[in-house]
Amino acid sequence: MKQKKSYGIGLLGFGTIGTGVIKALRRHGDLIEQRTGLRLELRAVADIDLERDRGVEVDRGIMTTDGNELIADPQVDVVVELIGGIGAARDLILKSLAMGKPVVTANKALLAEYGAEIFAAAEEGGADLFYEASVGGGIPIIRALREGLIANRIEKICGILNGTCNFILTEMERRGESFAKVLADAQAAGYAEADPALDVDGIDTAHKAAILASLAYGFPVRLGDIYVEGIGGIEGMDIEFAAGLGYRIKLLAVIAGGGEEVEVRVHPALVPRETMLGSVSGVYNAVLVRGDIVGETLYYGRGAGSLPTASAVLSDLTDVARNLASSSPRRVPAFVQHQARGRVRSMDEVVTRYYLRAALPDRPGMLARVAQILGRHQISIASVVQKEGRTGEHVPVIILTHEAAEKNMVRALQEIDALEVVGAPTVRIRIEDVS
Amino acid sequence: MKQKKSYGIGLLGFGTIGTGVIKALRRHGDLIEQRTGLRLELRAVADIDLERDRGVEVDRGIMTTDGNELIADPQVDVVVELIGGIGAARDLILKSLAMGKPVVTANKALLAEYGAEIFAAAEEGGADLFYEASVGGGIPIIRALREGLIANRIEKICGILNGTCNFILTEMERRGESFAKVLADAQAAGYAEADPALDVDGIDTAHKAAILASLAYGFPVRLGDIYVEGIGGIEGMDIEFAAGLGYRIKLLAVIAGGGEEVEVRVHPALVPRETMLGSVSGVYNAVLVRGDIVGETLYYGRGAGSLPTASAVLSDLTDVARNLASSSPRRVPAFVQHQARGRVRSMDEVVTRYYLRAALPDRPGMLARVAQILGRHQISIASVVQKEGRTGEHVPVIILTHEAAEKNMVRALQEIDALEVVGAPTVRIRIEDVS
Repeated sequence: MKQKKSYGIGLLGFGTIGTGVIKALRRHGDLIEQRTGLRLELRAVADIDLERDRGVEVDRGIMTTDGNELIADPQVDVVVELIGGIGAARDLILKSLAMGKPVVTANKALLAEYGAEIFAAAEEGGADLFYEASVGGGIPIIRALREGLIANRIEKICGILNGTCNFILTEMERRGESFAKVLADAQAAGYAEADPALDVDGIDTAHKAAILASLAYGFPVRLGDIYVEGIGGIEGMDIEFAAGLGYRIKLLAVIAGGGEEVEVRVHPALVPRETMLGSVSGVYNAVLVRGDIVGETLYYGRGAGSLPTASAVLSDLTDVARNLASSSPRRVPAFVQHQARGRVRSMDEVVTRYYLRAALPDRPGMLARVAQILGRHQISIASVVQKEGRTGEHVPVIILTHEAAEKNMVRALQEIDALEVVGAPTVRIRIEDVS
Repeated sequence: MKQKKSYGIGLLGFGTIGTGVIKALRRHGDLIEQRTGLRLELRAVADIDLERDRGVEVDRGIMTTDGNELIADPQVDVVVELIGGIGAARDLILKSLAMGKPVVTANKALLAEYGAEIFAAAEEGGADLFYEASVGGGIPIIRALREGLIANRIEKICGILNGTCNFILTEMERRGESFAKVLADAQAAGYAEADPALDVDGIDTAHKAAILASLAYGFPVRLGDIYVEGIGGIEGMDIEFAAGLGYRIKLLAVIAGGGEEVEVRVHPALVPRETMLGSVSGVYNAVLVRGDIVGETLYYGRGAGSLPTASAVLSDLTDVARNLASSSPRRVPAFVQHQARGRVRSMDEVVTRYYLRAALPDRPGMLARVAQILGRHQISIASVVQKEGRTGEHVPVIILTHEAAEKNMVRALQEIDALEVVGAPTVRIRIEDVS
């Protein structure tokens, strides 16, 4: 049978990433064809706004405001969903898959909330569903996890998955300025959204963590299962103290586990400076994956942006086209449940090391009282640094602990902060001693 | 049509990696089946030595000393070549492919020397040929380059591709000891071969560079095309001086280019310490890939070893099995020539920055004479550090240059070293200002 060699793309959503996809496809459609023998053709674009100038010309004859029309178009062999959010995007993806039409999406929120439904629709429709662009922008991390490391049980994943947060933390360290100041500058420069909550509160990172955890551990992990803490509470002095101790503060997604119970958590963490993860600066993302066969691996690159994300979308489109050309849809299924009884461990049970900054009066016996409370909750101290101050005033006391259970730490901090001598709530940041 | 769900593996070469493949397959054959629906079964093992204890039990009934018998065995659906070298390995791979039987190999030397022949045989035989394990051990770098970044023109690749060399250089810096001392210790500890030439002379790195360059630029690059310099000449004081200037010395494979001419070179280089590549220590490997769409990406992990390499072999085997199950052999061809007139640039024409260490008498006018010679060859100086010494004695003078052409540097150094005042040949190490 002679194979059809050209495949029509329908683009849902003509925003930043959609524009990048069109630009990249125009630049390298020939190159992709040389490398694969397959031609990807833009055949339809749907968006509610057909007028805005995106800096790229598209024939008005292939544009529509009706997403349903686009997915039903027989000229469209693959649907690329770049609308985002969980309303129209979900509806159109489900309809496409029900028609047996393959979908490529960058929609992390949708997969984190409705992954199980979408994956089931892909299976029922017998259609491909690819989502490389949903995590880590242009970094081929989904492909690495699902195909490259397929012979591994995943022991741990630590990811820096939000470029905006990493940029803010990097600049806070470099410039010695506050979160609020750096955020405002990042917003002015276009590196942070006007409403930065999705990024700085850790939600975007948690969406991506849900996707990686589901893939790695073979059961659906949802946003609601994940402990999430953002970077809004990080103070300049903690970045400075951490640096003095050989650490940097990063917003991490930590996914770890062996059997049925898996930790999935998003929070700021102290990471050793002289490590690969500790060296990730600015808007870059990185994902450290430890497999039981391969050992530690790491994947690094731009986690967002028009063209980097387009690079991932086009690699997915090539995969779809290859499957269409060889009549092998779902050669690599969107998701395979291989852990029937998987569940996310309660945050109470999670064990980590901690960095604590207590505000204590500079007089004898204060540290002893704090240490006593920690000890009573089975938390043992690894090191203490007391900063100089004037006698009688509150000074920051930095305590690094050995491993302790979260529930014990929560109770210990309640007691410590209830001491009348304590000047302010104790700051607590977890430590991840990645290598 | 009901698909066959179980695929027979024939292992050519029961050495370190072969043992790792058997161990990993035993540990995770079930997991791979859960994830893919496909069963990989070890059905034959060929080696000249059937007696040696490898720490893993194999049924004597499936062992043979005859590789030809193994590849002809109808029970064997995929041949895994782990013999190494270019004699029997080449012969058996060519025969397997001619039969239309897919091959998975880790043989970098063979691909670097006879890639064109092997790739042509795969095409003629209509069979899959996968070689993820040939570069970067367990790091899925071939997959990333060939599939994940398919929409990119590759602008540059900088790789730390030999774990032994990186271990030696890391230990020289950490312990402040000489190349010879650290190498001897590495040999005693089993981190370096009794005959270390293939590693420390850069040949192994060049084999891998040939494979990456061929894939990235779409024309066959052979070992003989590549400029190769090893790490045997690196002295402790250069590592120390480099550190003082904010650099580390790494053995790099540098592949760069745009059009028909591509640079492919292997040599020690100064890399900024505070970068991802500069942070790669010990036996780890890393590959920085800059694509014109995705920007910079990096892939990191163990570049050698029994289990890490087995992880890559098993991912290739899964790919082969998926292709067999969906009757889509050569869905991703082993190699696609997409640059008809590609060639490797002459080293003379390569432009880099340089670190120079000249041995000059500590008296007035010496530096001026050196600077004059450099200037006459269009080499401009970026900075100079003169180390303290006793008047009249030779002291090391460190010169960092701006970008200069290799041929100019070669001529300039000939003149400098011909000066009667120069105490020893000038040391020259290239600088790669990767980010």
